[in-house]
Amino acid sequence: MKFYTDEEIIRHYKMKDAIHDVTQGLDALNNNLIKVKERTVINAEEDNVMLYMPAINLQKQFSAIKVISIFPDNPAHNLPTSQGVTLLTELATGKSIATLEASYLTRLRTGAMTGIATNKLARRDAHVLGVIGTGGMAFEQVLGVLEVRAINKILLFNRTEQKAHQFKEKLVEFGVTAEIEIVSDVDTLTKQADIINCATKSEQNVYQHMNLKVGMHVNGVGSYLPHMREIDIDTIEQAAVIAIDDVAGAEHEAGEFIHASHAGRFNFSEAIELKDLINMDITREDTDFTVFKSVDAAYYDLFVAIGAYEKLK
Amino acid sequence: MKFYTDEEIIRHYKMKDAIHDVTQGLDALNNNLIKVKERTVINAEEDNVMLYMPAINLQKQFSAIKVISIFPDNPAHNLPTSQGVTLLTELATGKSIATLEASYLTRLRTGAMTGIATNKLARRDAHVLGVIGTGGMAFEQVLGVLEVRAINKILLFNRTEQKAHQFKEKLVEFGVTAEIEIVSDVDTLTKQADIINCATKSEQNVYQHMNLKVGMHVNGVGSYLPHMREIDIDTIEQAAVIAIDDVAGAEHEAGEFIHASHAGRFNFSEAIELKDLINMDITREDTDFTVFKSVDAAYYDLFVAIGAYEKLK
Repeated sequence: MKFYTDEEIIRHYKMKDAIHDVTQGLDALNNNLIKVKERTVINAEEDNVMLYMPAINLQKQFSAIKVISIFPDNPAHNLPTSQGVTLLTELATGKSIATLEASYLTRLRTGAMTGIATNKLARRDAHVLGVIGTGGMAFEQVLGVLEVRAINKILLFNRTEQKAHQFKEKLVEFGVTAEIEIVSDVDTLTKQADIINCATKSEQNVYQHMNLKVGMHVNGVGSYLPHMREIDIDTIEQAAVIAIDDVAGAEHEAGEFIHASHAGRFNFSEAIELKDLINMDITREDTDFTVFKSVDAAYYDLFVAIGAYEKLK
Repeated sequence: MKFYTDEEIIRHYKMKDAIHDVTQGLDALNNNLIKVKERTVINAEEDNVMLYMPAINLQKQFSAIKVISIFPDNPAHNLPTSQGVTLLTELATGKSIATLEASYLTRLRTGAMTGIATNKLARRDAHVLGVIGTGGMAFEQVLGVLEVRAINKILLFNRTEQKAHQFKEKLVEFGVTAEIEIVSDVDTLTKQADIINCATKSEQNVYQHMNLKVGMHVNGVGSYLPHMREIDIDTIEQAAVIAIDDVAGAEHEAGEFIHASHAGRFNFSEAIELKDLINMDITREDTDFTVFKSVDAAYYDLFVAIGAYEKLK
C-alpha cells in the first residue's frame, strides 16, 4: 500500500493530465462504466462532519473512496477546514493499493472541469481572464482556463486586496507569463475580461451583469450552499448556454441557480451537464453569454485519483 | 499516513486486547458515543462486490471506514475471496492517519465477540471445546474461547479431515497447550464438548441437537446468508438464552434463525444483543443450552481498528 502526499502529486500530475483524465472519465460515465453511490455523511461533535464518497470505474478497473473531514473550527487551531484522502482498490484483484492526499486533486479536478467547460463555451479569441475571489479554490481554476485559451492578461479582484497580491506572486512563481493586474473594483475587471472565474462564499452576486463585457463566459465554483450567490441572476437568465457539472447536485446546492429557479428565471432542465457537453459542438454568437457552474460529484475525484496513481506508481 | 500489514498487527495486537477493546466499544455504543451508517455496496463485474462500512467513535475520537472486496472467483487466481483495509481518521484534527489491513482484525474481532459471549453464557466449569469447521474464521474463534474458559481439551471436526490436522498444527504452533484430538464423526464431538464453535457455510445443521451434551453453549459464526444453516433449530428452540451480535442484521442474514423464525420456533425479540449482554448477569442452570450467533456489524471493526492503531503507533 503506497501513500502519496499532495507535494508528490503536485510534482507529477498536472492540469493537462487532469483535463485528459476527467474527459476520458466522463466518456466512461457516458458508456455506463462508472458507478457512483450517494455519499455517506456522519456528524461528529460540534459542526464537524465526515463525508465518505465511493465510486468505481469499470474502464480503469479501480474503486475509489474519498474520505473528507469538514471541521469549521479547524482554522482557529491552524488546521485546514477540509482534509481528505482517497483510498484506491484494484478491481482486477480486489486489493487496496494506495491512498492519496486529496486536497490538491480536489482543486485540480475542479480546475480541470472549468477548463473543459471553458474550452467548449468561451469565445475562441478570449484572451483576458478576470478572477473574482482569490481564495483556496481559485488557483487551479486559473490553470484550467490557461490550458484552453491563449490568455495574455489576468485581472485579479479580492475583497482583501493583499491576498490578491499574494495570489499574483503565486501565479508568477508557478511560471504564468500573462500580464497580471490587481484591480480594486470589480467593474474594471468585468468590463475588460472575456472570461471570469468566481470562487467565493458570497451571499450576493459578486458583480453586476450590466457591467459585463458582451460575450463573456462566466465560471462559478463558489456558492455551494442554497443561501450563497456569486453569479448575477441576470447572467443566468440571459445566458445562451449554461453547463453544470452535476445538475442533480446543483438543484440542492447552487445558491443563485436555486434562487433563479424559484424566481421563474431559470429552469434546471435548460442546463447541459458536463458529461453531455464534452460530446457537443456548441455554436455561439460572439455576443452570447455563457456560464459554467460546478458543485461537486464523487466521480470527478475518482477520475483524477486514478490518473494521479497511474502517473505516480 | 501509516500502513500496517496483517503481519505487524498479528505480532502486537492479541485476543486479550481485542476482547478489552470490543467490550469498551460496546460500552461506548451503549452511551451513544458510536455512530454507524449503513454500508454502501457497489457491484463490480461478475459477482464481484465492493463494500464500504463507515463508523465513528466519539469516545476514542476516530472515524473508521472498512473497504472490503468480495470477489468469489479470486481463489481460482490464488487470491483470497475477501480482502479489506480500514482507513482511520482522527476526529481531534480531521486528519487521516493510518490504513490497516483488515483480514486478521476481522477474524480477531469475531473471535473476541465469541469470547465475550462465551464468558457470559457458557458454564463456568466448561473445559472441553468442540470445533465444527476448521476453515478461515475458526482459528480466532478458538482463541476467543481459550481466553475466557480453562479449556484443557479441543476436539476438531472438519468435512475434509486433512484440514483438521493442519488446524491442529497451527494451534500447537501458536502455543495452545490443551490436548487436541481430531474426530471423524460429529457425534463423538458433541457428546463430549461443553462448548462448540460452528464456522461453516453449510446449508443444513452440522450436528444433531439430540446428540449435544446437556448444558452446552453453542457459538455460530458461519451461516451468514438466508439459505445457510449450521446450528440445529432444536437448539435454537430449546436454548435458555440466545445472544446475537446484531439482531437487525441477523434478521436478514442468519439462515437458521430466519428459518426458525418463519417456522414459529423462534422470535428475534427473544434474543439478547451483545451490547446488552455485556451489562447483564446471566444465571443459567447447568443443564441449560445457550447460543451465541454472530453476523457482523461495522462498529466491531471500528473498535479493533482503533485498538490496534493505538497499540501499534
